[in-house]
Amino acid sequence: MAKNKMHTHRHYEEENEWGCGSWLEYALVMILACILLLASLALTLYWVIKHRGGFAWRDDPIKQFNFHPVLMVAGFITFSGFSILLYRICRCCRRIYVKLLHTVFHALAIPCVAVGFLTVLDSHNLAQPPIPNFYSLHSWIGLVTMGLFAIQFVVGFFSFLILLCCEGATAGFRASLVPIHASFGLTTFMLAIAACLTGLTEKVFFSLSSYYTTFPPEGNVVNALGMVLVALAIVTGYILQREEFRFRAHILIRSGDL
Amino acid sequence: MAKNKMHTHRHYEEENEWGCGSWLEYALVMILACILLLASLALTLYWVIKHRGGFAWRDDPIKQFNFHPVLMVAGFITFSGFSILLYRICRCCRRIYVKLLHTVFHALAIPCVAVGFLTVLDSHNLAQPPIPNFYSLHSWIGLVTMGLFAIQFVVGFFSFLILLCCEGATAGFRASLVPIHASFGLTTFMLAIAACLTGLTEKVFFSLSSYYTTFPPEGNVVNALGMVLVALAIVTGYILQREEFRFRAHILIRSGDL
Repeated sequence: MAKNKMHTHRHYEEENEWGCGSWLEYALVMILACILLLASLALTLYWVIKHRGGFAWRDDPIKQFNFHPVLMVAGFITFSGFSILLYRICRCCRRIYVKLLHTVFHALAIPCVAVGFLTVLDSHNLAQPPIPNFYSLHSWIGLVTMGLFAIQFVVGFFSFLILLCCEGATAGFRASLVPIHASFGLTTFMLAIAACLTGLTEKVFFSLSSYYTTFPPEGNVVNALGMVLVALAIVTGYILQREEFRFRAHILIRSGDL
Repeated sequence: MAKNKMHTHRHYEEENEWGCGSWLEYALVMILACILLLASLALTLYWVIKHRGGFAWRDDPIKQFNFHPVLMVAGFITFSGFSILLYRICRCCRRIYVKLLHTVFHALAIPCVAVGFLTVLDSHNLAQPPIPNFYSLHSWIGLVTMGLFAIQFVVGFFSFLILLCCEGATAGFRASLVPIHASFGLTTFMLAIAACLTGLTEKVFFSLSSYYTTFPPEGNVVNALGMVLVALAIVTGYILQREEFRFRAHILIRSGDL
């Protein structure tokens, strides 16, 4: 009872500290982040359908490749981005619901990333002549990002969901893991953006070659997509490191509801 | 006097909380970060001298271009990286000295970035036929990074050094600006890494073309340099978001010594 009272009191106190300006700033950056997350996927789809001939499966490896950018952006950027932002968007929900939604969004990213990975392997291996795998910097960055993503998912799933079965005994451990998980989460997201940017650079130089220097429509679409990803890096970095935006989480950490 | 006493007491208390493991972790990641910062510059120099024919000025625009990666990595990665890490390395110095050193390191980055920018413009404009400027995604990311860097430098210089002339009156404003400056500082550093990674991808596809798929020595050097930058993003992201590593700053903020 005393705990709940303290919790409510703190919440009331901190909400009161938020003036009109803070709410406006919060609403603006959150809406901007959501628009950018959706715009990155929409622009990738537009680029692939309008300029790269759309999709196909194994009978046409060049068009099969087109699944790769779309699924990787969907998984690593849109789903993961929303999953990360959930902790700032759902500030009034119970933490366990946010946590489950965070897991669901990341779980939705997994098939996207897995199929996105398989399509690029297929499009290399089925090409005539076959194209070697993992020779480029983009592929190396992609592998590191996938590795970090997998570690984050497994560690997060076991530490913050499975270990809830012994809630009291693991509270200290889970609390100490939160900042590490959050820090590596932001880094993984930034690396995913870097992987996308190097992938776009690679693809546009392959496809357009010297025609890229004449500012063609496809080049402009790819550059615009890159700028959306850069804007996303700036906005997400700002949101996640703005202490005020996460005060709800702080209160709940203090109340031991991890 | 009372302020100083409180300050010393807190410092003593918090230092006591750091066990042997924390010191070991701190020392390891700091040494790793310093090695990676120096390795990125050393690898860039090695790549340019060993595989790209070294340096020249305007009479040889192709070799003049080689100043671009070296100076951009020196400015945006090595100098800026050390400048950022100073706040975690110099935990026992007076804050004003750290602040001045932070400014000096960033100021050293400015000529590097400026000359690095001029050399790429020269190498494009003096080429036969001239190569258009700012058509690629890499150049757009570079421009955004330079813009953010400039804003951060000007805002930081005026807010945290010039405004010290009216120390008491501006303490609140400066304190509220610290997390924003730190957040955009990390984002600028991450964008600088993304700019380097896209630049490396662009250059290696231009220079090696399909030979890149055969894992040639130059391709491996460029990929290794890219991996050093990725490791730097992971380590720096971890260091800057590890609350424990910045406790000294917290104490001084509380003491109003901003």
